[in-house]
Amino acid sequence: MRWTVHGERPLYDTPWVRLRALDVEQPDRTRGDYHVVRLRDVAVTAAVDDAGRVLMMWRHRFVTDTWAWELPMGLVEDGETPAEAAARELEEETGWRAGSLRPLVHAQPAAGITDSRHFLFRTRDAVRVGEPTERNESDRLEWIPLPVVRAMIERGEIVSSATLVGVMALLLDLSQGTG
Amino acid sequence: MRWTVHGERPLYDTPWVRLRALDVEQPDRTRGDYHVVRLRDVAVTAAVDDAGRVLMMWRHRFVTDTWAWELPMGLVEDGETPAEAAARELEEETGWRAGSLRPLVHAQPAAGITDSRHFLFRTRDAVRVGEPTERNESDRLEWIPLPVVRAMIERGEIVSSATLVGVMALLLDLSQGTG
Repeated sequence: MRWTVHGERPLYDTPWVRLRALDVEQPDRTRGDYHVVRLRDVAVTAAVDDAGRVLMMWRHRFVTDTWAWELPMGLVEDGETPAEAAARELEEETGWRAGSLRPLVHAQPAAGITDSRHFLFRTRDAVRVGEPTERNESDRLEWIPLPVVRAMIERGEIVSSATLVGVMALLLDLSQGTG
Repeated sequence: MRWTVHGERPLYDTPWVRLRALDVEQPDRTRGDYHVVRLRDVAVTAAVDDAGRVLMMWRHRFVTDTWAWELPMGLVEDGETPAEAAARELEEETGWRAGSLRPLVHAQPAAGITDSRHFLFRTRDAVRVGEPTERNESDRLEWIPLPVVRAMIERGEIVSSATLVGVMALLLDLSQGTG
């Protein structure tokens, strides 16, 4: 049952957030305005080393006022592909540079309200090229063994959906011997 | 490195979406306004039957104009606990009633921009009590064997972050024999 969008009206637009009213008709003919938040896409990188460890950041999120472990991630800027953004953010936030990136999974964080997409990549050949240039993002960077990640999820130390989707995909590959 | 919120200003508020400007100071003392979208929490249910199948809905999302398989989910209304919302949405959207719900995982879909949380539950004892009362949500309901879910993710037929997090958690339990 497809919901039909008859029109879109801007309510409040900035370069980062565009709040819109969509004129939507439901399958049963109910018609009305829905609020939609148009946001930039996000690129995320899971860097894994030869020892089966994944590179994570311990960071604070002021919106939720919570601390948690996350994969490096950031907004896809104008003119960038998601893979370019993933490589740039990885290097800015961690000082590690990916040689090659492979798509891991694609996710829609909240498709009921926003069009933003999360593009996740994995790399196995990151090399350290210096200190992180983005100094406000994290307190600690660690290469964390994947089996430990499982326990961190259960303790609630990983809550970002993009991070959960990424590390769970790695864990499933590991469990199948395809990682 | 904690980012400090000095104040919050409403920009555009509705019962469903509250767009705010937060006055934020970064660890390096940079200070400025950040746009934040305050949204309701979402409750999600993974119902699994004795054959190891999970109940999923094939649905259209007008915001992204995409079709995909999703777990039943919906907004937590005023006065509801997440578990109450999960049970209500499951029954409205599928016609199946959960006897008991256990927390599965908690996720923040996009903590860089919104405070919304996804509360996921699992149930093993859902019973069919009638037809779905919410008729606009899905074209098809199916009990899908968990091993098939893995291939569906790889084919891009599951993209909702909440759904991915939920079914991946079930698959990881299955791989450990703890499901």
